[in-house]
Amino acid sequence: MTDRTWRLGVAGLGTVGAGLVQFLAEHPDFAPAGGRAVVTGVSARSRSRPRPVDISALTWFDDPVALAASPENDVFVELIGGSDGPAKAAVETALARGKPVVTANKALIAEHGLELAKLAEANDAPLLFEAAVMGGTPAVKMLREAMVGDEVVAVAGILNGTCNYILTEMEASGRPFAEVLAEAQRLGFAEADPTTDIGGFDAAHKITILAALAFGKAPNFAAAEIEGLEAVELLDIRMAKDLGYRIKLVAAAMREPDGVSVRVYPALAPLNHPLSLTSGVLNALFIQGRRIGRIFIQGPGAGAGPTAAAAAADIADVMTGARRPVFQRPSAALESFVRLDASHHSSRAYIRLLVRDQPGVIAAVSETIAEAGVSIDSFLQKPVEDAGGVPIVMITHEAPESVLREAVERIAGLDAVVAPPRMLRIAPI
Amino acid sequence: MTDRTWRLGVAGLGTVGAGLVQFLAEHPDFAPAGGRAVVTGVSARSRSRPRPVDISALTWFDDPVALAASPENDVFVELIGGSDGPAKAAVETALARGKPVVTANKALIAEHGLELAKLAEANDAPLLFEAAVMGGTPAVKMLREAMVGDEVVAVAGILNGTCNYILTEMEASGRPFAEVLAEAQRLGFAEADPTTDIGGFDAAHKITILAALAFGKAPNFAAAEIEGLEAVELLDIRMAKDLGYRIKLVAAAMREPDGVSVRVYPALAPLNHPLSLTSGVLNALFIQGRRIGRIFIQGPGAGAGPTAAAAAADIADVMTGARRPVFQRPSAALESFVRLDASHHSSRAYIRLLVRDQPGVIAAVSETIAEAGVSIDSFLQKPVEDAGGVPIVMITHEAPESVLREAVERIAGLDAVVAPPRMLRIAPI
Repeated sequence: MTDRTWRLGVAGLGTVGAGLVQFLAEHPDFAPAGGRAVVTGVSARSRSRPRPVDISALTWFDDPVALAASPENDVFVELIGGSDGPAKAAVETALARGKPVVTANKALIAEHGLELAKLAEANDAPLLFEAAVMGGTPAVKMLREAMVGDEVVAVAGILNGTCNYILTEMEASGRPFAEVLAEAQRLGFAEADPTTDIGGFDAAHKITILAALAFGKAPNFAAAEIEGLEAVELLDIRMAKDLGYRIKLVAAAMREPDGVSVRVYPALAPLNHPLSLTSGVLNALFIQGRRIGRIFIQGPGAGAGPTAAAAAADIADVMTGARRPVFQRPSAALESFVRLDASHHSSRAYIRLLVRDQPGVIAAVSETIAEAGVSIDSFLQKPVEDAGGVPIVMITHEAPESVLREAVERIAGLDAVVAPPRMLRIAPI
Repeated sequence: MTDRTWRLGVAGLGTVGAGLVQFLAEHPDFAPAGGRAVVTGVSARSRSRPRPVDISALTWFDDPVALAASPENDVFVELIGGSDGPAKAAVETALARGKPVVTANKALIAEHGLELAKLAEANDAPLLFEAAVMGGTPAVKMLREAMVGDEVVAVAGILNGTCNYILTEMEASGRPFAEVLAEAQRLGFAEADPTTDIGGFDAAHKITILAALAFGKAPNFAAAEIEGLEAVELLDIRMAKDLGYRIKLVAAAMREPDGVSVRVYPALAPLNHPLSLTSGVLNALFIQGRRIGRIFIQGPGAGAGPTAAAAAADIADVMTGARRPVFQRPSAALESFVRLDASHHSSRAYIRLLVRDQPGVIAAVSETIAEAGVSIDSFLQKPVEDAGGVPIVMITHEAPESVLREAVERIAGLDAVVAPPRMLRIAPI
């Protein structure tokens, strides 16, 4: 350990950035590896915006790229956000100068991770992003460092707090999606434009990063299959619960015979399953290793305090002098994920129909699904007011997803079925 | 990152040691930080014992201290066990030569952590012990590295798989402690002499280590308050369940107004609490930070595969060149835990009596407990066959533990009470 003073340049002074600057100002003894960490320069959109910490003594940069290039700091902390634009330019500038980079930017790492890893390794500069995934819950460190003596076969969990909050509230209050989303927006749990969260893209960024760390691959956001919350109706939340399940937006990366699948989709988990018990804005992750077995981790997935604490932990890692490949193996050896042929996936499924209340419907549905080659584990028909038909739900045994889709199409063609059937997967872990 | 080859000396070739040697032999590409890791020397009690890996090409040392001293290896891996004797002598020998040490030895670190940390830091040698706590579940790394940007206020969980297996089986099978213990011994889940596990000492070693990391203190095993499973009867497991709780052996370190308490004791957790849902040989841990909030981690707590994988992760950390204090802050600045005055502890409690079936008993009990200043949250009287009396159980509101004990003593003095009352705490997290 050394007495070195590490001078930090912090770009982006929203709640996370201001929180980090405040933490370091209030903890001059922050010396997790010996030495000291001091913020010397900052950059943000507005210099005068009110902040919880006084930045008047710090060198101000209008341009984050100039802050990243400045010889007056030794570590660049990027908290601007966005996969391109100034965040990317500034991170590239810092790495090209051999300056360690700490970032919370999931879109940047998920979409440009390989080129940034190459730049980082060519210049012997750490590139750390614990704060990009699960806030203060150290999923990145676990996969990057704790699992190296094992072979990961799956990582899967709940990585978007906004979606999880909405699902939790829909179930608890019995209110429909749009109403709960509007409330989440009022409370600040959802953005004015909620597409990134609701559409599954934020969770897909995060599972892309975790998958890269877990499987030693280059992140390839384009290879992720993404379904958001759009297909989840209140009716399905209720019917799933009657069958002993809860619906969650699951992000999963699984080793398959022909590669690694990286997917985000709404899925059902049994009510006493740890994912089902992850409520509100919490995040959770399973890591399945061949030797270690199954590790489960749960914690706050976002928020200024946890995210700033994660960035501080990364700064500590920089101060230790540790050198590791960015994604488990040297960037030159990284292969990108490729999108797997969907016909290879197998799953158990929840299928929900709305049917006319007439004799012979159950027989027709169960014959049709049997003919398609799908066998049924649970079956429930239950009248629900204002559903527009009588709901029938089935949980299937595992079957190829192509077979399941074929079965759903056949059922959709039955006379008694009054609306397009809904199919959701059972959680894979 | 470098191309350096790290030569490992491994002392102790039980299932964990042999598993580690096998893993490294089968993974010549193990290069988590660049470079290579190769086992060059080994030591164990028997050279000829059958093992899953061929050690004939490795240099054999009869004496682990000679292996630790040998210039033919760069990292010493101690998997012998025991707080003193050859394990301690060998670790000291390696550290004194500036050689990084990786160990799975919880007793050694819990009882001699401070002097070893001083030796390690004086010789600029990492001393790593991920495998000492929770097997492959990286509790040590989380506390040492991920929480440095936060202030930990509590760590609490289930750290002994043997006790947890026994409690799980007692509940599932309705068999008494002694019978389940004997079965656990037959199955290899419990030692022939089970005192270390059953008496809470193993969990106390582990929480002592985690507390040192969490609170930046020197481990002081002597300051831990330890109660084992002895006080847990099948009757209490059943009655607790009727009230919606499950009994677990909890290890907890909590920041208190006058210091940090480090304790192991059987405690009740609500049935849907993550600790209650941690069954069999699983381990689990809550980490509560001021900024991050509450993180929960669960995974296999022991076993050759997970433990060897944890040691491999530590070897990877050595290969990164990282330098950190052993227990969060330089050893010269570490203060030892002191045992807190028990009169300062407060808790909710489960109190169970056996009474004679006669009029006025409930009134007498409830008056007595009210006079002692304890208020009751739940109360259950329920006949149980062969219990030797009618069981009455109460869950109290929070009260100073001295007050609770006083209440129990008063109750014990009532005529209708036919056996010493049992008191267990409600889990603190």
